[in-house]
Formats: sequence, structure tokens, C-alpha cells
Amino acid sequence: MAEALADYEQLSALSPAVHDFVAGGSGAELTLRRNRSAFDAITVTPRILGGVESPDTTTTILGTAAALPVAVAPMAYQRLFHPAGELFLAEAAAKAGIPYIISTLSSVPLEKIAAIAPSWFQLYWLHDRGAVRALIDRATASGCSALMVTADVPVMGRRLRDVRNSFVLPTEVTAANLVDKYTEAHSALNGASAVAAHTAAAFDPTFSWSDLEWVRSVTEIPLLVKGILDPRDALAAIDAGADSVVVSNHGGRQFDGAPASIDALGSVIDAVGNDFPVLLDSGIRGGTDVLKALAIGADAVLVGRPLLWALAAGAAEEALTLLGRELRDAMLLAGCADLAAVADLVTGRS
Amino acid sequence: MAEALADYEQLSALSPAVHDFVAGGSGAELTLRRNRSAFDAITVTPRILGGVESPDTTTTILGTAAALPVAVAPMAYQRLFHPAGELFLAEAAAKAGIPYIISTLSSVPLEKIAAIAPSWFQLYWLHDRGAVRALIDRATASGCSALMVTADVPVMGRRLRDVRNSFVLPTEVTAANLVDKYTEAHSALNGASAVAAHTAAAFDPTFSWSDLEWVRSVTEIPLLVKGILDPRDALAAIDAGADSVVVSNHGGRQFDGAPASIDALGSVIDAVGNDFPVLLDSGIRGGTDVLKALAIGADAVLVGRPLLWALAAGAAEEALTLLGRELRDAMLLAGCADLAAVADLVTGRS
Amino acid sequence: MAEALADYEQLSALSPAVHDFVAGGSGAELTLRRNRSAFDAITVTPRILGGVESPDTTTTILGTAAALPVAVAPMAYQRLFHPAGELFLAEAAAKAGIPYIISTLSSVPLEKIAAIAPSWFQLYWLHDRGAVRALIDRATASGCSALMVTADVPVMGRRLRDVRNSFVLPTEVTAANLVDKYTEAHSALNGASAVAAHTAAAFDPTFSWSDLEWVRSVTEIPLLVKGILDPRDALAAIDAGADSVVVSNHGGRQFDGAPASIDALGSVIDAVGNDFPVLLDSGIRGGTDVLKALAIGADAVLVGRPLLWALAAGAAEEALTLLGRELRDAMLLAGCADLAAVADLVTGRS
Amino acid sequence: MAEALADYEQLSALSPAVHDFVAGGSGAELTLRRNRSAFDAITVTPRILGGVESPDTTTTILGTAAALPVAVAPMAYQRLFHPAGELFLAEAAAKAGIPYIISTLSSVPLEKIAAIAPSWFQLYWLHDRGAVRALIDRATASGCSALMVTADVPVMGRRLRDVRNSFVLPTEVTAANLVDKYTEAHSALNGASAVAAHTAAAFDPTFSWSDLEWVRSVTEIPLLVKGILDPRDALAAIDAGADSVVVSNHGGRQFDGAPASIDALGSVIDAVGNDFPVLLDSGIRGGTDVLKALAIGADAVLVGRPLLWALAAGAAEEALTLLGRELRDAMLLAGCADLAAVADLVTGRS
Ligand SMILES: Cc1cc2nc3c(=O)[nH]c(=O)nc-3n(C[C@H](O)[C@H](O)[C@H](O)COP(=O)(O)O)c2cc1C
Ligand SMILES: Cc1cc2nc3c(=O)[nH]c(=O)nc-3n(C[C@H](O)[C@H](O)[C@H](O)COP(=O)(O)O)c2cc1C
Ligand SMILES: Cc1cc2nc3c(=O)[nH]c(=O)nc-3n(C[C@H](O)[C@H](O)[C@H](O)COP(=O)(O)O)c2cc1C
Ligand SMILES: Cc1cc2nc3c(=O)[nH]c(=O)nc-3n(C[C@H](O)[C@H](O)[C@H](O)COP(=O)(O)O)c2cc1C
Repeated sequence: MAEALADYEQLSALSPAVHDFVAGGSGAELTLRRNRSAFDAITVTPRILGGVESPDTTTTILGTAAALPVAVAPMAYQRLFHPAGELFLAEAAAKAGIPYIISTLSSVPLEKIAAIAPSWFQLYWLHDRGAVRALIDRATASGCSALMVTADVPVMGRRLRDVRNSFVLPTEVTAANLVDKYTEAHSALNGASAVAAHTAAAFDPTFSWSDLEWVRSVTEIPLLVKGILDPRDALAAIDAGADSVVVSNHGGRQFDGAPASIDALGSVIDAVGNDFPVLLDSGIRGGTDVLKALAIGADAVLVGRPLLWALAAGAAEEALTLLGRELRDAMLLAGCADLAAVADLVTGRS
Repeated sequence: MAEALADYEQLSALSPAVHDFVAGGSGAELTLRRNRSAFDAITVTPRILGGVESPDTTTTILGTAAALPVAVAPMAYQRLFHPAGELFLAEAAAKAGIPYIISTLSSVPLEKIAAIAPSWFQLYWLHDRGAVRALIDRATASGCSALMVTADVPVMGRRLRDVRNSFVLPTEVTAANLVDKYTEAHSALNGASAVAAHTAAAFDPTFSWSDLEWVRSVTEIPLLVKGILDPRDALAAIDAGADSVVVSNHGGRQFDGAPASIDALGSVIDAVGNDFPVLLDSGIRGGTDVLKALAIGADAVLVGRPLLWALAAGAAEEALTLLGRELRDAMLLAGCADLAAVADLVTGRS
Repeated sequence: MAEALADYEQLSALSPAVHDFVAGGSGAELTLRRNRSAFDAITVTPRILGGVESPDTTTTILGTAAALPVAVAPMAYQRLFHPAGELFLAEAAAKAGIPYIISTLSSVPLEKIAAIAPSWFQLYWLHDRGAVRALIDRATASGCSALMVTADVPVMGRRLRDVRNSFVLPTEVTAANLVDKYTEAHSALNGASAVAAHTAAAFDPTFSWSDLEWVRSVTEIPLLVKGILDPRDALAAIDAGADSVVVSNHGGRQFDGAPASIDALGSVIDAVGNDFPVLLDSGIRGGTDVLKALAIGADAVLVGRPLLWALAAGAAEEALTLLGRELRDAMLLAGCADLAAVADLVTGRS
Repeated sequence: MAEALADYEQLSALSPAVHDFVAGGSGAELTLRRNRSAFDAITVTPRILGGVESPDTTTTILGTAAALPVAVAPMAYQRLFHPAGELFLAEAAAKAGIPYIISTLSSVPLEKIAAIAPSWFQLYWLHDRGAVRALIDRATASGCSALMVTADVPVMGRRLRDVRNSFVLPTEVTAANLVDKYTEAHSALNGASAVAAHTAAAFDPTFSWSDLEWVRSVTEIPLLVKGILDPRDALAAIDAGADSVVVSNHGGRQFDGAPASIDALGSVIDAVGNDFPVLLDSGIRGGTDVLKALAIGADAVLVGRPLLWALAAGAAEEALTLLGRELRDAMLLAGCADLAAVADLVTGRS
């Protein structure tokens, strides 16, 4: 049984190749490991005698009320992990009262997901500008309340586990949102990742700031840019009309030289100021990590892999309950009545 | 045979679950490990030719004369480790000439302990305010010479070892000071710690600064607040009338993101000034650690787990003798005639 | 199959002694290990939305146009690894569009190599000044477009693996550029490296700044000094007429107390200024390392051991293709259209 | 065969208890390990093109000309390791042209040693002041050219290996300089070190600065104080008339909280100035370590354990030859013609 969010990896009984697809990072996985070592090294000095009975974890993330300062990170192809895929995890998010972020590459059509859970939509930049436009319109029409543009995947990072496993998607798991002319993801290729081949064919690496301005111009819903680490890019995103940025190294799956997201957070906040909403992901493995990120200055976090492990273990809802409990526990032990109190905690490193 | 205080863990022949109850910390046990790595990394530069024959380890802690700058940390349920429980360890403390701190959750009534050893009383904040008042009054009446209020346990930290062991107290080990309406500590619960369930039922998490002021108002004996890491809380404790603070992260058993106590010590001392008595615990494993804590600025330390291991090994008195010897040895080798000389040593990290 | 440049070590099926000859460093191999730990600890903050389709890796190194900011490090006796030796690797370099640096101790005559690939010549300082002069003249005559003088080998560093292996060259592998009166390299010596004995006999440790000035005076082609770590030496090299310096600790094979080259790079650049061309080697194992070196300020790098492993695996060309791909991938993921953009990235350590 | 000074430990075929007596440190052996990790972390930036043919390692240490900036550290009871004990090692030192330092606890009478090798005498402070005076007079009379007073052994550090081994000296190995009324070193004691018991009986922990002044007053030969880490003590030693100090933590055998000697060196030199001779020991394992210590500012070093291992391997002379070679190699590779050039090298940490 899972007693901590971090337990689900062991409880997920996935095939080695699918396990690797989730667990792996790019290159030598230096950034992947750094994401964890950085969190482990952070200290937060707890407060006492706050008179807190039950900490209030609620917040509003870009206009969306949320029971926790957490959203489900956009993650592709969730039917790899559970027959119901995205629907199962989105339902859990809805029950937990947090936003579910639908991936461009969801294996269930976005409309079906948005119908059962308050969702945001994550956008990848495709060669086919009409397809991009269609995705934005479908997302808005289905009631997605924010658009998260992922900016750190001009191409997929070279994930050597997938390459060595010649990883390929099973026929029944498809990019359900795309009228996909590309068959790469399902064509096994010796010594290559079929998923990488698919994105190489479908994604447009020339994605630029002016493209982002175009995105801004075609939708009114809040716009987030995901995958920012350099403060100069955070400022550029604001210039382009973004309402928020997600400090992220894509869980160590893209540029394998990047700092841990949590180590990059401070300088981004210094640049954009305390009032601009900044989210963070990469390396969150439990409630204490959420508290650490918020103590350093994030407004909310996205959680990735732990929820896929839980999905595979058929325990998505339980996992989010556990995460909420871990966060409340951490807040109580750190003497915090609410998230504002968390932001006031002193942090260090050792 | 124990040649160093740190040897007793191996000499204690406890059941795995009871061993885990003592050894474990909360969450991923990051703070637990940090307590030790921090002490190991501290260096103290010894002095020479001080002409010291036998170092003087005596001190006065909050008005209590002590043969060593050490008190026995308050620790619950000592009959888990030895049939005579608290009585055995308290007697050893009395022989060693140091204060014994009686836990609210002692498994022998506080009066019996206070009768055989100069004691302080440690107070947990219970839902039942009458019970709290009764405990304070009983402690004072029994001659406890100080009241140590533990402020870092609004709820018990989630100690996963106990949870996974479904840890439960044996029938004969009870919270002997409490006319306990709660039976949780003795009711095995699959996938939960019965001890945690008990404290969840009995402890009042809303404990606040004004409650502390009330405590201050109902007793005249010296008041210590245990579990402080943030300098702002140290100052608040002084405002509330505390006579001393104990810089502690509860041995890594409460908030698993906290800095090592020894790393938090400096900033607390900076805030309260050198004249205010500051104690420290968490991670002390031998005489050199005591010297390190005093060199950094603590006035005295509490020692926890090592004394439980010794208690389990039936060697509580021997352990305190050994600790005294280790401290004297360390002082002699560091050229210190007395504890004032220790405070004058230069410290570093590497 | 190799999926990363770092894979070739495992794919090279060399005898243990030859493997050790390549892999080993001097002394306790502290500098050897530091070269890698330093690179792993460096972080580079990627940029986004640069609109980059295919990054431009071309550059000009000392007047030589190069498809990558990379040259093949000068490495002795390449027929140890492949029957065609230097010819095989030089041909791969030519195909990859990068300079091949011919070692003084190449096992194929320099003229043959220079005939098939755009080459530079690396010069060791020999007792026999006539031989030195002849080498320079031959190199120039064969069209080598730069002269790289190696300054960190007054004697060979004591490589204990070779000593313990009593490493000796097979008869067919010789220093083909030298009319060699020395037979040491082929005479097995119990408890000694025959290669070290050879260099001890042939190399002149008294090599000095005025000798370097003499070298400068006898050739017009660009002059590089390889093996600089102290900024004072970089300035002296400029004074002596050098056109470039190579910050290098010889891959941890010479002074086993040296800092990692990459850690020495910054202070050298500070001394010589941004406009003076600075190259770097020691520890580069893939495209991300190249990007790290350039982000810190190198103009180009030399790659050593990985190419010998590839040579031994019969895959020199494939290896350089892979390295180019890794660099382009890294640039794309870091949002860099060209090498100037790489130089603008922010670097850190963790 | 030994190819590096560090090899002798493996070549010495000692009984486990004797091995432990040499290898061990006090307490948890934190300082023992720190001595090595500190040396390993130090970097020295080599210079090039110094035109050095054969580096000059000669120096004068307190008026004694020495072929290397090295002296044999004073070490007790050398007949434990070789039948000829001190005589064997002293003869090797004489051949190597470096001072041999005779321990108060030598197992061969000091006069015999001084007769065959240029020696210094190391003094422990004994209860019996007459015996101390006699030792000083005998040392001077036998031609010892310096007196090194060890100041960091008020009592012996608690070396747990010896305690657990109930270490005791064999009958034939005695403190040959003392008309010893104490029999402790030869009386096995369960759970105690007989050697520690002996020093506890014989040594006077009250050794003070005024005693040192008395020592200064009774001899004219150069006086060194060994065991200094705090700059304040270095200044006090100068006040008391010392001609030199040895920065040392006794090889991690005394106060197990001390910084690495090499980490304490800088602040001592800052206090006493560059002209006052400062020696260092603790952790030197080869020629590169000697160079590191000199680059940081030591005038010479003492080498301890490696020479005992070599003595046990019957290879004392060979070991010193190897050490000299390692130092010359390191100097050559670092571009240093002499020890003044070493002092000019830049040092770092990583
Ligand atoms: C299997 C998997 C699939 C992912 N798919 C997407 C995706 O489709 N779109 C996207 O923006 N990020 C994607 N990500 C990245 C996550 O959104 C998130 O940035 C990352 O997982 C956070 O790190 P963590 O897993 O350490 O929490 C994916 C991550 C994983 C592990
Ligand atoms: C088994 C156990 C029981 C404890 N019970 C109490 C308690 O009843 N009250 C309290 O204030 N602290 C309690 N503590 C915490 C100790 O007082 C002390 O803060 C901690 O053990 C110090 O760390 P150390 O064990 O590393 O020395 C307990 C600790 C342990 C290990
Ligand atoms: C087997 C081998 C032979 C080498 N021979 C030479 C040489 O002849 N001339 C030279 O200047 N450097 C020589 N080097 C050093 C390389 O040019 C280069 O500085 C070093 O290998 C870079 O480090 P890396 O191997 O970690 O990339 C040699 C290195 C190796 C591994
Ligand atoms: C077996 C042994 C015996 C020693 N005996 C003495 C001694 O009699 N007097 C003394 O001043 N130091 C003594 N020392 C300490 C050495 O002089 C020296 O400070 C220490 O060994 C240096 O550290 P290293 O062994 O790491 O080189 C002894 C050390 C060892 C290992």
C-alpha cells in the first residue's frame, strides 16, 4: 500500500520499456537526478505555535479555484498506463479539486476529458498551423480555462532509454486530438524511439516569440508558458502577453544540462516580481516538496511522474488524497495556517 | 561492550518495530540524516598547552546545577525499552548529576520519577485543558524544577516506519500520567501508527502563543520552549515569558524539511543574544558532539536516542559515565579547562 | 550500437593494457576524475522560442573553417587501436569537416595524414633540435594549417596503470615521424612504462619560453600552445607570439593535482580577453559538454579519448556524426541558433 | 612492488592489531578521513615552459640542510614494525638526506639513533620533570639539532580500534629512552589500549605555556612546537620562544573534531607571517601532497604512516627514494625549478 506519494513508482507494475519511458530523462540524466538532489538539499525552517488546526491549502491559480496549489502536469498518452487513461486521472483531479492539464498528445480526445474535469489545455507547436489553431479553438470551446504553451520541446530530448528500448506505442494508444497524418509513433524503429520520431515529424522547432504573440491574439483564456528557466525568457513571455510562466526543465527530459527547476526559480521570481504568478514543476515527489517550492516563491506546482505511477497502480484518486494530506501535514508541522504563511518561511540549503 | 556512546544502538536488542520506533524519522528521513551529516561536517579547532589536568564540565542550566552540560531528552514510553522504564534512566541521570526530563507520555507516573531524580517536566498541549493544568500542577508539586513545553508537535510527524510496521504499544506500556480516555495507542491499526493515532486524538494542534502565555501565568518554575528553529520564534518565546529555548527538530521526527538543529543554532543565538540560555538537541551521539554544540554557542544539550539504546541494553548509568568521559576527553584534547573555554573555540565546516 | 559518444568506450574491444593506456591518468587519477565531475556539475540555463530550425555549428578556428567547434585532439600511436590508425581517424575528421591534429608521435607519417585530411601538427619538444626543426618544416610543407605546441609534457606523467602493466608498444606501432634512435618504446621493462621511458629519452624537459619564441620565428602558420591552466602562462604565450592557447590538463595524464581544465577556463579568459581564441580539452564526452565549454567561453574544444574508443570500434566517422548531432540537439534544446548564442547562455554549478 | 608511496600500506604484512594501531585514528575517525579528503580536494595550477631540467628539492629546515622539504615524523615504538626499528628508518632518512625525528617513545635508545642519522628529538611532557630534563640533555648531547615539543597529547586520543583490540605492546618493544617505572604498555587490559594506559600514567596533561618557556630556557637548539592548529596558539608559541611550529592534528589520532591540518595551514601562516618557518603533517601520502602543502605555504612537511608501512615492508630507503622522485616529478610537471617556485603556484579546491 502507498503510504507516501513516492511509493507509487514501486506499486506500478509496468513493462520495463513503459517504465523507462516515464522514469527516464534525456542524455546522461544529469538534470533528472539534479531535480531530486536539489529538492533534497533544500531546507525550510518551520514555525511554531501558529495555533493552526487544519491548514488551508486552497488557492486560486490563474482564476481557477483549486483545493491545492497543484495541477496535474500535462503528460502524453495516458492510456499507456491505464485503460481509461486521461479520463481516470482527470476524474481524480476533479475529485481532488485541482486543474487537470490535457496534453496535446492525450490519448483520449480533449473534449471527453474536459467534459468530466475542470481542465487546462497544453499546446505543442505543430508544423500544421491549422491544426494548432483547431486545438486552441477546441480547447476553448470545451471549456478549458487556461492554455499552457510548452516552449521547451523544439524537438524531443534524446532519451536514451527509449532509444535503446526502440520504444514504440501500442496500436491502441494514439494522439487522439490530432487528425494525425504521421504514423511514426506506431512504427517500431530499431535503435530509435518511435515517439521521438513522431514528434520530430509533427512538431515545429521554429516556434518563436512572434508565434507566441499570435497564440495570445487568438484566445482570451489565461496563457501560461511552460519550460522557462532563464529570467530573460520570463520577461519576454510577459512581453508576449503571458499571464504566467511555468519554471520547468520538463522533468529532466529535454536539455540535459539544465539546472534543477527549483534552483532556477529564485532568479525568475526576482525578474518578474512577486505579483506575477509563477508555477514550477520537475522533481516534486510529495507534499514537503510542494511546500518547499512555495516557500521559495512558486504560486503552485505541477506534479508529473508520481501521478502516472499512481494511474498505473489504479490509484490516481488515492494518490491525490495522499498528496493533499502530505501537504497539510507539512504545513501543520511547519506552523502554517495557509499558503501565505508558507511563502513567509525561511529556506536554505544543506 | 560499549566503548563509545554511539555503540549502544548495536547493543540494544530490540524487536525490529521498537527499534524502528526509536531510530526512525518522519517522511523521507532527510532531516534525520541531516542532523548527523551536519555534526560530522563541523570542525572545531583545538587549543594547546592550557595546562588542564581535569576539565570542569559542571554548569548551571536554568538554575539547576549539573555535572555535565547535558540533560536527558524527554522521551515517551520508556517501559518499551526496559521493565523499569523511566525509573531506570532517571536514576542513571541522578547518579550522573544531570537533569532528567519527564515526558508527558512517560510510562511511569511523573511523581514516581521526580521522587528519585532531579527532574524537569515536558509538556505536550492536550485538547483537555484541565489535564494540562493538572500536569503542570503535579509536576510543580513533585518538585520538577523546570517546565519544558514542546512546541513542534501539533500532530505527530508521519513516521513511515511506524506506519508500515502498524506500530502499536503493548498493553503494559501506557501514558501513565494521563487519565487516558483514548485507547488508540493500544489498538493495532493496519497501515497506521497507533501511537500517532493516539496523539492525533489527544493533542491539540491549535496550541498558540497565547496558550504559552497562559502556561507562563500558571507556574513560577523556569519555562523552556522546545522545538524552535526560526529566530523569530525564539524572540516570540522570550516575549511570552520563556526563560530558555531548545533549538530542536525533534530528532528529525517532525517536519522532514527542517534544517539540522545545529545548523539553525547560530541564527537563533544571534537573535536572542549570548546571555539568553539556549539549549540544543537532535543528532548528539557523543562527547565531541556536545563540545561542538557548545563551541557554536549552546549552553547545554539534550541527548535522546543514544540513551534509549543504552536503556534497552540495561546500561543507562554506564552510558552517561561514558558520555561524561567522552566530553572530558574532548575538552582535554581541545585544551579546555571549562565550558567557557569551549565556547571560545573556533568552529568551521568541511 | 552507440547511441551516445560516451558509448564507444564499452564498444571498443581492446586488450586490458591498451585500454588502460587510453583510459588512465597519472598518479592517483584525481585530476582525471575531476575533469568529469567538473563537467557534470556545470549547469547551463537553456533559452526558449528562439525560432531555431537547425542550429548552425560552423565556426572558424584559427583561420580554419570547421563544421563543428571541435578538433580531434593530438593523440599518439593510433595504430594501437586500428590497423589504419591515424588515417582512419583523420579521414573521419575530414568527412566531419573538422581539423585533425597530427601528434608528433603519430604511428603513420605526418605527410600521409596531411594528404588526406585538413590537419594541424602537434609538436613535442625533443632533445634533438634538428629533429624539431625538421618536424616543423615537414608539417608546413605538407599543408598543416596550424602548429600546436604541447607545453605540459616536460616528462610524461607517471601513469601507474602503464607502470603496473609494464606497458610496451607492439613492434609494428612506431613513432613514424621520427628517425628514431630511441628503442625504449619497444623494449619491455618490468615495472615501468616503455612509452614513458621513450619520452624520457627523447623529450627535452628544458623547453622554455625562449624556445617557444624560436618556434614562433621559424614558422608563419598559426601557433597554439597546448597545456595552459595558469592565466600568467596564457599571457606569456601571447607575449611569445602564440595565436591561441589550449586550456588543458592533458586529460588528467600529466600533473595529478591540476584543476579540471573547465574550472581553469574562466580565469584564463579573464586574463586574455574575449577576443583571443581559447580552446579547451580534457573531459569532453559528448555534445552537451561541448556546449558547456563554449557557454563558459571556449571558442572550440579538442576531443580525445572518446575518438580513440570509436577508432578501436571501427566507428570514427559515425562517432563524429553522433557528436555533431549531440551538439546540434543540445543547441536546439538550449534555444541557440548559432555558437554566438551559446556563448550568451548563463552557466552555473550544482 | 611499490610504484607509489601510497602502495606500502598494502605491502606491509602486519598483524591486524598492529595494522590498526598505525592506521587508526581517534573517536569516529572523522579527522583521520578529513585529512585525506582535504588533500584530495586541493588543486594546484601547474606552470609551463619553466625550462626546468631537474628540479631542486633541497632546502634548509631550521638550520638543517635537507635534500627534500621533508622530515620523518616522530613515531613511537618502531620495533613493532621491523626488528631494527628506528635504526632502519633513521638510516634510510640519513641516506635520503632528511632529518629523522626521534620519538620520546622510541624503542631504540635515542643515542643509538642519533649516532647513525642527523636527528631531531621529539619531546613528550612527562610527570617526571627530571626525566624530561634528562631527555633534553641526552638529545642535545647526542647531537640532535632540534627539539620538537609535541603539544597535542595531554592524554592519548581515544583510539577505538586499539581499545577494541585490547592492544598491548610485545615484551621486546619498550620505551627505550625512559627508565620506565610504568609497566602499563605491556600489561594486556581487556577492552583498553595498554599504550593509552601507559601514556595516561606517564604523561603530564598539565603541560602549559610556562612549561614550554622552561623548555626554551634549558636548551639552545631550535625549538619547534608540534600540534598547532589555532593561529592564537602559533602566536603564543612564538612568544614562548619557539623557532617553528608544526601544523598538525597528529594524523587524526588526537582530537577527533579537528579540521584537516592542511585546511588550518593558511590561517596559521596568515598569523605568523611568511618568514616564520611553518611545518605541516597529517595526511601526506605522496610527492604531490608535499607539493600541495608547500604551495599553500608550508616550509616543509613531516611524513608519518607511509614510512611505517614501508618500514614494515623492509623498504624504508626505497620509500624515501620514491617520495623524492614523486616530488621531483610533481615539480617538473608543475614547472617548478625549486621550492620557491612551488610556493608561487596558485591553489584551489574542488
Ligand atoms: C511520460 C511523460 C509525458 C509527458 N508529456 C508531456 C506533454 O505531453 N506535454 C508537456 O508539456 N509536458 C509533458 N511532460 C512533462 C511534464 O509536463 C512535466 O513537466 C514533468 O513531468 C515534471 O517533472 P516530474 O515528472 O519530475 O514531476 C511529460 C512527462 C512525462 C514523464
Ligand atoms: C522514541 C522517542 C520518543 C520521544 N518522545 C518525546 C516526547 O515525549 N516529548 C518530547 O518533547 N520529545 C520527544 N522526543 C524527542 C526528543 O526529546 C529529542 O528532541 C530528540 O530525540 C533529539 O534527537 P536525538 O534522538 O537525535 O538526540 C522523542 C524522541 C524519541 C526518539
Ligand atoms: C592515448 C592518448 C595519447 C595522447 N597523445 C598525445 C600526444 O601525442 N600529444 C598531445 O599533445 N597530447 C596527447 N594526448 C592528450 C590529448 O591531446 C588531450 O589533451 C586529452 O586526451 C584530452 O582529454 P580527454 O581524453 O579527456 O578528451 C593523448 C591522450 C591520450 C588519451
Ligand atoms: C604509529 C604512530 C605513532 C606515533 N607516535 C608519535 C610520537 O611518538 N610522537 C609524536 O609527536 N607523534 C607521533 N605520531 C604522530 C606523527 O608524528 C604525525 O603527526 C602523524 O603520523 C602525521 O600524520 P600521517 O600519519 O597522516 O602522515 C605517531 C603517529 C603514528 C601513526
